[in-house]
Amino acid sequence: MFGAGVRAATDEQLELIESKVDVLLETVGVDLQGHPGSLEAMRSLGAKVDGERVQINGAALREFVSAHAPSSFLWRGAKPNTSIHIGDGKPAFLPVYGPPNVRLGDGSRMMGDIDIYRDLISLCHEAKGLHSTGFMVCFVHGLSEAETHLQMAQAHIELSDKPFMGTVMSREALLEVVNMMPSPATSGECNLVHLINATPPLTYQKKPLECLQAASENAECSIVSSYMMMGATSPVSPAAAVVQGYAEILVGLALNQVYCPGCPVVFGMYAMPFCMKNMIPVFGDPISAKVQLLASQLASRLGIPSRGDGGLTNAKLDDAQAGYDGANATFIAAAGGSDLILHSAGWAEGGRCTDVNKLVREGQVLHDFYGSL
Amino acid sequence: MFGAGVRAATDEQLELIESKVDVLLETVGVDLQGHPGSLEAMRSLGAKVDGERVQINGAALREFVSAHAPSSFLWRGAKPNTSIHIGDGKPAFLPVYGPPNVRLGDGSRMMGDIDIYRDLISLCHEAKGLHSTGFMVCFVHGLSEAETHLQMAQAHIELSDKPFMGTVMSREALLEVVNMMPSPATSGECNLVHLINATPPLTYQKKPLECLQAASENAECSIVSSYMMMGATSPVSPAAAVVQGYAEILVGLALNQVYCPGCPVVFGMYAMPFCMKNMIPVFGDPISAKVQLLASQLASRLGIPSRGDGGLTNAKLDDAQAGYDGANATFIAAAGGSDLILHSAGWAEGGRCTDVNKLVREGQVLHDFYGSL
Repeated sequence: MFGAGVRAATDEQLELIESKVDVLLETVGVDLQGHPGSLEAMRSLGAKVDGERVQINGAALREFVSAHAPSSFLWRGAKPNTSIHIGDGKPAFLPVYGPPNVRLGDGSRMMGDIDIYRDLISLCHEAKGLHSTGFMVCFVHGLSEAETHLQMAQAHIELSDKPFMGTVMSREALLEVVNMMPSPATSGECNLVHLINATPPLTYQKKPLECLQAASENAECSIVSSYMMMGATSPVSPAAAVVQGYAEILVGLALNQVYCPGCPVVFGMYAMPFCMKNMIPVFGDPISAKVQLLASQLASRLGIPSRGDGGLTNAKLDDAQAGYDGANATFIAAAGGSDLILHSAGWAEGGRCTDVNKLVREGQVLHDFYGSL
Repeated sequence: MFGAGVRAATDEQLELIESKVDVLLETVGVDLQGHPGSLEAMRSLGAKVDGERVQINGAALREFVSAHAPSSFLWRGAKPNTSIHIGDGKPAFLPVYGPPNVRLGDGSRMMGDIDIYRDLISLCHEAKGLHSTGFMVCFVHGLSEAETHLQMAQAHIELSDKPFMGTVMSREALLEVVNMMPSPATSGECNLVHLINATPPLTYQKKPLECLQAASENAECSIVSSYMMMGATSPVSPAAAVVQGYAEILVGLALNQVYCPGCPVVFGMYAMPFCMKNMIPVFGDPISAKVQLLASQLASRLGIPSRGDGGLTNAKLDDAQAGYDGANATFIAAAGGSDLILHSAGWAEGGRCTDVNKLVREGQVLHDFYGSL
């Protein structure tokens, strides 16, 4: 779509980043909390394990991941013509993931619940520019913990035939959604994509480690992600943040391939400045674009698909700032070669709100703009 | 800035476009109206001249232009540190050019006059993201024809030390502004950049031909441009529009290099769909992005700098549409390798209005965004 694409660094610069990742993994390492299975898996790859701290040779990890993880895979929809290829050179666009609140078309603002969740899934289904209905397009308040993920998954199944993501609420919840799938994942094909987040700096908590293992053992895809707040949970400079993020991600990717060699997996790295004055992350800042481009290039060297982050902004309404920030974030991700672009439609207020106007607008213009290129 | 950059076509596809340009120039040709000097200049390059119609070998023209036109040049500001290199791999951002109206910060709308013109030049001077104060940031109504261009040029000289463009009101006006420059243009350095527009399809009118000659004979730069309305003044398909536009531009570039071999010159091609229902051109349509990318690639093969068009939109206010359209237009131009990006700040209403809010916003975010990459 974009030819050679937009690049932020030379091969020499990327090699330098990788060598710094190696130093970090060898001398500092990554903490894997509350999950002995992860420690065991890393030990099987030659890691030195001290308590919950894992230290390992980064170059060998990259080699291991490259040797096993596929460069592309099929993400199944309910019909063959809605399934999408991840890693084929064209980005897949996914809606916003995670906001607790929703701003409706009339400007009013509410907490997410299952009714608005279902409406949002229908809008994502109708949106020509979205290839997936994602997951957690808003929080679902008001249901019991045992019911929430089931009703969410049910909404995706009932209201759309596009592929959707799995839940990472807990290992048990994840497995329950996996069991709702009509047929198991097979080599090169998955039903669900799971968002597995490290907890920077250099840490994975118990629940994501459990979910990563559960998804992988079912051959379902994970996006192994580091989402860093520069100046708070990572260094402030882009290159140093990327080094930290890559160290975190590399360990997650390796775990995935130990659990299930050949399992579809996606490289996800993003970092945004943390505003020390207002104590909030700043979305739509151009420095994040640089991190995004570096992430795509590093994933490409590893030979696996990468996640991008589109549509990001701190704007409270769908105004000029939202339009400009969101367009640039999406374009950087697409032109840099991201294979799967999360938050492409509906993101507002730094991720604290799903904006219905913005979701509908972006769901259409993504089709108009990227469909024409 | 963007590495290999975003590309829309392969070399083979570009060669095919060039071969179709050759067919068009050989069998149809271009009309040069009311300016015998242009016909004479084209005859000196081997053209067949019939009335005002010129037919010529396109491959030979490309070779001629490539052999003489520089790949980069310096556009002088009033101080050495405000001068900018055009063609050095980084885009220069220029403000909007041409709207008859201005929308003020309070939402009111007025016809352009010299007072608001001066205010706009001051804003362009202050805008960190703009490398030039452009020219005709709005029409100047209310002054005599003899005075208008002089007072406009005077505003640029008094209120800013950034480089600015020349006038193309008439040959005489152009020369009067050239004579206001402190020192003449020299090899590889110019004071002024002139916007020379073909009149598609396949025509140049008398005044642009006179201005092109006058600018070139003073070694001042011209942007030789074709601005096509697809479906009205060019074919509707991007590839066919590009063929027509290139045929037009190539003749203008050749005239420039006959008048002054080595003169700085810029390749400018843009095309937007013409809406048959509302009878207006549609700015911000993604199909224009494709033409923009092809234009950059063709100019790059010729070895001369290219103009891009940023900030374009049909939005009436600086809203989400304006933010999204404008960001994408600018990004496509920059990532595709355009060297000089016109309309980067302030464009609204399909070019019928300069929007002060949008000008200020874009003047800042261009700096924030592109300055960080």
